[in-house]
Amino acid sequence: MSAPTESITAANIVNGVNVAALLDTIKAVQGNAEIGKFNFRATNKWLDGEKNRTTIKDFTGALQEHRTDSKGFTFDNGEPPVLLGTDHAPNAAEWLLHALVGCVTGSIVYHAAARNIVINAIDSKIDGDIDLHGFLGLSEKVRKGFNTIRVRMRVKTKAEPALIKELATFSPMLDVVSRSVPVALDIETY
Amino acid sequence: MSAPTESITAANIVNGVNVAALLDTIKAVQGNAEIGKFNFRATNKWLDGEKNRTTIKDFTGALQEHRTDSKGFTFDNGEPPVLLGTDHAPNAAEWLLHALVGCVTGSIVYHAAARNIVINAIDSKIDGDIDLHGFLGLSEKVRKGFNTIRVRMRVKTKAEPALIKELATFSPMLDVVSRSVPVALDIETY
Repeated sequence: MSAPTESITAANIVNGVNVAALLDTIKAVQGNAEIGKFNFRATNKWLDGEKNRTTIKDFTGALQEHRTDSKGFTFDNGEPPVLLGTDHAPNAAEWLLHALVGCVTGSIVYHAAARNIVINAIDSKIDGDIDLHGFLGLSEKVRKGFNTIRVRMRVKTKAEPALIKELATFSPMLDVVSRSVPVALDIETY
Repeated sequence: MSAPTESITAANIVNGVNVAALLDTIKAVQGNAEIGKFNFRATNKWLDGEKNRTTIKDFTGALQEHRTDSKGFTFDNGEPPVLLGTDHAPNAAEWLLHALVGCVTGSIVYHAAARNIVINAIDSKIDGDIDLHGFLGLSEKVRKGFNTIRVRMRVKTKAEPALIKELATFSPMLDVVSRSVPVALDIETY
């Protein structure tokens, strides 16, 4: 993995992103709307107590199935001792913060590349507050999830913060968290 | 890790959850609201292109700092080739699905334990649709994140599906995704 660099190479790589390929993707989606339709998925198996295991493998996008021959990725959800677990893995709240901060970072990098804006570094902190009164069912006034999430990013670039923030707002997971997404929950018992 | 079992042991373990400890937690939060306040966090560093790395370490909860002496957990965000990456890690959309399905699973297991409902197995599939017209800025009518997410769970239990679904609605990350959370985004450039 090469370090981010100020110079734009002959292959038109900006911020480690192949800009020619990115522009080709944009053109392809403009030319055929179906190419832009993606479906991401995962399976999960409960192990015991707080432990459950997710496998992330195939997905659909650009009119194809991907990672069909791959082993995929496997990760666990856990809980720390204060939440009655053994801390063998992050909990779901932490995983969600990982998804969100990574998505905002990647979105800045890709959209900056498309506009030929060089990004030299991004270092972020993300945190969120949860009040257990919600999850434990002790108060209907307290929500179960995060009340608020804060993302603080330090970006090494010549571009202005307002422009970087504009790029950040393209983040799909920022959209998911900051606007509601309908979740259809189908439960079958046997 | 022991397999889930129908029998409730002398230590009052239901579904692998220490029910006495869970009830103690509920009492503690009822007795002092501050004990219920948690702050989860992560740091993230952009590596190059689609690659960025999250470290999940300390958090605050039950009036204490936790994992302060731990190395913490480190995970990457990536992208597959069709999204201009090398597929070295799941992308943020997949990580979010992992967080969500794991949280719903864990919430069912904990709330079932508190009500003495035995769960023998949970196997789930989760998927979500994203239309790249949103992320690529090709249409303002198309949202950037998931349009919809589907969770299908098969739960081995004597309880009715409607009751299991009621337990699932305690999931904090289901709350985050299906209702909006304010995200404060602070960007500094240098």
